[in-house]
Amino acid sequence: MAAASRTMVPPAAIDVLPESDTSTFTLPDRLTIQGVAKRRAAEGRLVAGVAALADVDRFKGRSVHAHKPKARRWDRKYCLIDRLMIMKYLGFGSLTVISISDRFSPESNRRLPSSLKGAAQYLKTPGIISLGGGLPSSEYFPFEEFNVKVPVPGSFDNKTNHAVMSAGKHDLAQGTSDFDIATAFNYGQGYGSAQFLRWIIEHTEIIHSPPYQDWSCTMTVGSTSAIDMGMRMFCKSGDWILSEEFTFPTAVESAAPQGVKVAGVGVDAGGLRANALDKVLAEWDEAVRGGPKPFILYTVPTGQNPTGSTQSAQRRKEVYAVAQKHDLIIFEDEPYYFLQMDPYTGLNSPAATPPASHADFLASLVPSYLSIDTDGRVMRLDSFSKVIAPGSRVGWITASEQIVERYRQHADVSTQSPSGMSQLVLFKLLEEQWGHPGYLDWLLHIRAEYTARRNVLLDACELHVPKSIASWSPPAAGMFHWVRVDYTKHPSYGSVGRAEIEEAIFQANVRHGTLLMKGSWFCPEGQREGDAMFFRATYAATPLGDIKEGVRRFGEALRDAFGLEKGFDGENGSVAVK
Amino acid sequence: MAAASRTMVPPAAIDVLPESDTSTFTLPDRLTIQGVAKRRAAEGRLVAGVAALADVDRFKGRSVHAHKPKARRWDRKYCLIDRLMIMKYLGFGSLTVISISDRFSPESNRRLPSSLKGAAQYLKTPGIISLGGGLPSSEYFPFEEFNVKVPVPGSFDNKTNHAVMSAGKHDLAQGTSDFDIATAFNYGQGYGSAQFLRWIIEHTEIIHSPPYQDWSCTMTVGSTSAIDMGMRMFCKSGDWILSEEFTFPTAVESAAPQGVKVAGVGVDAGGLRANALDKVLAEWDEAVRGGPKPFILYTVPTGQNPTGSTQSAQRRKEVYAVAQKHDLIIFEDEPYYFLQMDPYTGLNSPAATPPASHADFLASLVPSYLSIDTDGRVMRLDSFSKVIAPGSRVGWITASEQIVERYRQHADVSTQSPSGMSQLVLFKLLEEQWGHPGYLDWLLHIRAEYTARRNVLLDACELHVPKSIASWSPPAAGMFHWVRVDYTKHPSYGSVGRAEIEEAIFQANVRHGTLLMKGSWFCPEGQREGDAMFFRATYAATPLGDIKEGVRRFGEALRDAFGLEKGFDGENGSVAVK
Repeated sequence: MAAASRTMVPPAAIDVLPESDTSTFTLPDRLTIQGVAKRRAAEGRLVAGVAALADVDRFKGRSVHAHKPKARRWDRKYCLIDRLMIMKYLGFGSLTVISISDRFSPESNRRLPSSLKGAAQYLKTPGIISLGGGLPSSEYFPFEEFNVKVPVPGSFDNKTNHAVMSAGKHDLAQGTSDFDIATAFNYGQGYGSAQFLRWIIEHTEIIHSPPYQDWSCTMTVGSTSAIDMGMRMFCKSGDWILSEEFTFPTAVESAAPQGVKVAGVGVDAGGLRANALDKVLAEWDEAVRGGPKPFILYTVPTGQNPTGSTQSAQRRKEVYAVAQKHDLIIFEDEPYYFLQMDPYTGLNSPAATPPASHADFLASLVPSYLSIDTDGRVMRLDSFSKVIAPGSRVGWITASEQIVERYRQHADVSTQSPSGMSQLVLFKLLEEQWGHPGYLDWLLHIRAEYTARRNVLLDACELHVPKSIASWSPPAAGMFHWVRVDYTKHPSYGSVGRAEIEEAIFQANVRHGTLLMKGSWFCPEGQREGDAMFFRATYAATPLGDIKEGVRRFGEALRDAFGLEKGFDGENGSVAVK
Repeated sequence: MAAASRTMVPPAAIDVLPESDTSTFTLPDRLTIQGVAKRRAAEGRLVAGVAALADVDRFKGRSVHAHKPKARRWDRKYCLIDRLMIMKYLGFGSLTVISISDRFSPESNRRLPSSLKGAAQYLKTPGIISLGGGLPSSEYFPFEEFNVKVPVPGSFDNKTNHAVMSAGKHDLAQGTSDFDIATAFNYGQGYGSAQFLRWIIEHTEIIHSPPYQDWSCTMTVGSTSAIDMGMRMFCKSGDWILSEEFTFPTAVESAAPQGVKVAGVGVDAGGLRANALDKVLAEWDEAVRGGPKPFILYTVPTGQNPTGSTQSAQRRKEVYAVAQKHDLIIFEDEPYYFLQMDPYTGLNSPAATPPASHADFLASLVPSYLSIDTDGRVMRLDSFSKVIAPGSRVGWITASEQIVERYRQHADVSTQSPSGMSQLVLFKLLEEQWGHPGYLDWLLHIRAEYTARRNVLLDACELHVPKSIASWSPPAAGMFHWVRVDYTKHPSYGSVGRAEIEEAIFQANVRHGTLLMKGSWFCPEGQREGDAMFFRATYAATPLGDIKEGVRRFGEALRDAFGLEKGFDGENGSVAVK
């Protein structure tokens, strides 16, 4: 797919991955599902009690990543010494200094390790009795056992079979499980429990295989919190960050109180435009903007909210190159990553065709920024909210050890670890019940379900939304559909402003009994007269019949607002004009 | 008990509450356990779906609080206009302006309500189909049912009886429960679910009955996060806050990266000293401190960490009066509130005597700052970590609506709600299984257990710790025991510094196989030569036999470090010299 396509062809997940990328899946050092068991056997059984420190190197497999380069460091010390010295050593006459500034915020640089944790080293003394730490006894947790009924691979569609996962209070001591109520329900470390972190690290390696040595993961209490904490790590009041010109409003609302503004970067049907990013940065005028040139790019590369666009592999490479040129850090927020779909091919598109194997499924996924991040400049945000349940409030970030360590230090004195109840439920499900293969089966199931939902919405749009004034690019991932409305055809155009017409269309929707979101709500810098107008629809949760009816009403509302003949479907049914 | 007792008598929970306070429990507008059912019947059944807004006024009972004064407001608008105008109106010739400064931080003042939430009002339109919000469908939550086995009131001690709590996916729709998997496991509001928030509000009213009208509660992901977010609400870099001179290190480590320093206020066996607080504030010198006079007091009034001290009712009144004088906001951090105990009366103290009734139990509790907060200047932090399980990562704050609203706005774009899995488990336990009376039974059980643990530790101290060099005040609440060591009797005193002797004693403990925390780790401003030396022991979780042995080793280590005769118990067994 062309990088900056103007023809609005949907970015199809299946054909964006060049052969050269899929081949990396078979490289000997890339972890496969089959490889997990082997690695675990080599590393021995995990025994991790209350608030145990996690041995990330062990979970990653010792020496497996040793041949990879180390991540770029972001503190002043490195910037001033290491990088300059390396370049001098390499004999560059005139130094092209990429950056000598400290990327970490004053807040992050003031973080110190906990003094009390210094005492933890003495806990290793053989036979020592600790009267030190104030962790309560599991004796006083009023929970003896819990059982959760879950669907099992093979019957996700018809739900005929279920399993009951069971956790006792002292399974760990009794050797019946690596995790239990006594451990999970007590205090934990900022990165979460060792037990579940191991699964997360393996999963991350199977899916992304980060191409540098010292990557790491730490759990979050959700990606929204990770955005908040990530910005505090790198930004200070008066700073700007970058994002798609239409973006997740919560990211903007999380930044604003910190005194951080969000500069929008142009998008097309293929998502964030690399050229637009380069232009914003190259032309950045501190005096005009009232703040220094930004170095954080916040992006949702797959099924972007609100535009529904997905950046192709090629697009990601181009954006990454711009990030290298301007030495950016990329916040890769990917809640919809596994909701990549077959392309929509028009009315009555075939149902999703499941990949023939897990390897085929993984190869079909657009490569993440993390998977092409040779420098360690990506902080990837993963979430269970869209694929398991938002109420778990468990997610994780993947980034260089330096970034992860800063994040964890903040978590230790703020959010702490995510809910141990959630962690235990997810561990039981993803580690013990489903394992890595069962989880991929679940993701395939979810993908098929969302594809069906998307198709229902897009079919309804084909049938009911007047294309003389509305146009769209079928989403190839995620939950959102982004409809452009040509408001120059609105009867009031010329006599009232753009915002009034947007409000009039919004109210026409409400009057006709349907609710879509205004595009302007997603603009960090607001919209001006002449800017295109959009409405966002979602097929995430509405029952299928209601999706059809909601879209029918939307079509009706548009006709009403634009004074088109009622009930007349215009050119719908003919070849889509996009 | 005398406010600033020098005789180190334990602040006993039972006798600190004057008659006049207990009598308020029977005032008609104070919510009792019995009153909950009546209020609920009047307000009708709670029907709250996914991410439903909570009707706090309904949970508090309409008009019940109407006769109380309204809380002080903390924004500039109020300070400049309302308060001055009121005072002028009242005819004060010379205005005694209590405060004209804005207490909220620039960060907090930049918070705006979410634009997307503006759309939520249209969801009320009858028959509307929402294609708006991106909440996933519960169809895709892979959890059908869960069952948790819990102890039941009446057999908490011997655990002979259990109940199994059960939650299904669609209990709410089926009318079998007010809460279910489909609702709890989806996204929620920043204050948490309406279902569990109702229980929290009722509980708070039963225990504290805040004496002003517009109090409210919002859930937190734990008090550590609430400290972090609370400081961001009121402080900016360069500010100071106040705390006990020995305090919870995490609070200091949460403040430091924000550029906020902690000034210690003198304590005695009865906790924070009101006079010392007044003195620090009255003598505050901006030039010396390099920051403005603080207006946040962070305090742990009950079973304070690390000193184990508990402020009496009288002490709290004195401190509150100082807070009014200097217009302070009090962060009342109370994880140990319900771990108040009968006084320790020496070797083989009797077991805890359970109060005769729930009303007696409530009357025996030291009144909280919240319960005497006529101005609305207290932000109370409650936690389930010490009484249910830390791994729930659910807590709540209680404060004026204005403060709660600011907190919630931050949570909405950061932590969001606490884990829905945790909330559902807690709701099932505290609302459906135990109810308010069962929870009080549980608290009585826990209180007796911790009393027994404390007695084991204190008995061991009586038997093994040489009183010629060590002294202590028996804790009357919480988990911590604070031992003062007279290091002027250490052989190296005079030749090496205080810090070296503290380290030498710490290392002697390790050598003898026991671990206690250094007192200096709890000093926000560090300790100087000549300052008293302390070690903190805890009886929270160590098995009883290990507590005895750990304390025996501590005694041995002290004798070793101080060159006392080995195995000789000094004056132990005689009347305590404290």
